[in-house]
Amino acid sequence: MKSIAERLRQQINFIIEIDKVKHIFRKTKLFNKSRFENDAEHAWHLAIMALALGEYANEEIDVSKVIKMVLIHDIVEIDAGDTIVYDSKSRALAWEEEKKAAERIFGILPADQKEEFIALWQEFEEKKSPEAKFAAAIDRFQPILQNYLTDYYAWQAHGITYDQLYSINEHIGEGSETIWALAQKIFDEAKGERAVEE
Amino acid sequence: MKSIAERLRQQINFIIEIDKVKHIFRKTKLFNKSRFENDAEHAWHLAIMALALGEYANEEIDVSKVIKMVLIHDIVEIDAGDTIVYDSKSRALAWEEEKKAAERIFGILPADQKEEFIALWQEFEEKKSPEAKFAAAIDRFQPILQNYLTDYYAWQAHGITYDQLYSINEHIGEGSETIWALAQKIFDEAKGERAVEE
Repeated sequence: MKSIAERLRQQINFIIEIDKVKHIFRKTKLFNKSRFENDAEHAWHLAIMALALGEYANEEIDVSKVIKMVLIHDIVEIDAGDTIVYDSKSRALAWEEEKKAAERIFGILPADQKEEFIALWQEFEEKKSPEAKFAAAIDRFQPILQNYLTDYYAWQAHGITYDQLYSINEHIGEGSETIWALAQKIFDEAKGERAVEE
Repeated sequence: MKSIAERLRQQINFIIEIDKVKHIFRKTKLFNKSRFENDAEHAWHLAIMALALGEYANEEIDVSKVIKMVLIHDIVEIDAGDTIVYDSKSRALAWEEEKKAAERIFGILPADQKEEFIALWQEFEEKKSPEAKFAAAIDRFQPILQNYLTDYYAWQAHGITYDQLYSINEHIGEGSETIWALAQKIFDEAKGERAVEE
C-alpha cells in the first residue's frame, strides 16, 4: 500500500501487529474442553462480561471504559507471554517485561494514541479506579468459570490449592462482592469434589 | 452452582452460551496464514480497530457504541453460521435465521438486557446510524486487510472478481471515505497482481 498518510500507516501497522494476540495461548481451556483459549478470545469474552455483569460493580463504573481496558489488557503479552497468576515469581518478572512491551507495541501508534492506550493499560494494571477494580474482577472470574466447566483443568494441571484460590483471587471482592461470592461458591464445590487440595 | 439469584444465573448462562462463538470459523485466514480466524477473534479485532480508526468516520460517532456493536454482531452465528458476503443468496436466507438466533441467544439474558442487546444488533444490521455505518465499514475492511496479507487467500479460494469487490464493499464509503480509499488501493493491487479476475 503505497502513498498512504503516515498517521494511517502507523494505525494499520498496529492493527497488523496485534493479530499476534490470537496466537498467545492461556492455561485454561474453552468451555467445551477442546483446546486452550487464546488472548484475543479471552479479551472478547471479558468485554461482553463487562456489558452483561457491569451492574454488579461495587462502585459506579463507566462500562465503556472497562470494555476498552479489557480489550487491550493482554496486548503486552505479544512480547511478554502469558504467565499463570498463581506463580508470583513469574508475575513479578513479567511486570518489567510488560512495561517494555507496552512501550514497543503501543508505540507503533501515533503519539497521541500511544499515550491514550498506555494510560488505559496502566490504569488497568494499577487496579485502583472503580473501572480497573471491576475489570480485574472479571479478568479473574472468567478463568474460574472456565475451570468450573472443564473439570477444573488448569487448577489440576498446575496443582493449585484451595488456599491459593482464595489468596490470589481475593481482590475480585474489591471490584464486585457479588462476583466474589459466586467465585467462592465455585471454590467450595471444587474442594467438595476434592479437585483442589486444602 | 446452587442458590444463585435467577437474574445472575441468566447472565452466567449467556456468558457460557457465547463461548461457542470461538468455534465459528470465518473464510479468511489470520495474518500469518496459519489457520482460519474465528468470530470471537474477529470481533475483538474490530473493537480495537474502532478505537484506533474511529477518527476516520465520515460523521461524528460514539466510538464506545461502535465497540459494543462489533463485539456482539456475530453472536447470532452460533445458530445461523458464517456466510461469505459475496454470496447474496445465502446472505438473504441467513438474515431470517439470524433473527431467530438473536431471539434465542439474547433471550437467555434477563428481559431488559435482551432488549438492549437486540436493539444494538438490529441497529448494526440496519446500517443507518453513523455508528452502524462505521461498524459496517470496519467489519468489511478487516477481511480485506486479511486478504491483502495472506496472498488474497479467501478471494482466490472463492473466485471473487474485481467487480464483486467493488459492488459488495462499496458501502464502506458510507462509514468512512478514508477507509474506502484504502480498500480500493488494495483492490487495485490485487488486480495488478492478477489475484482477482476483472
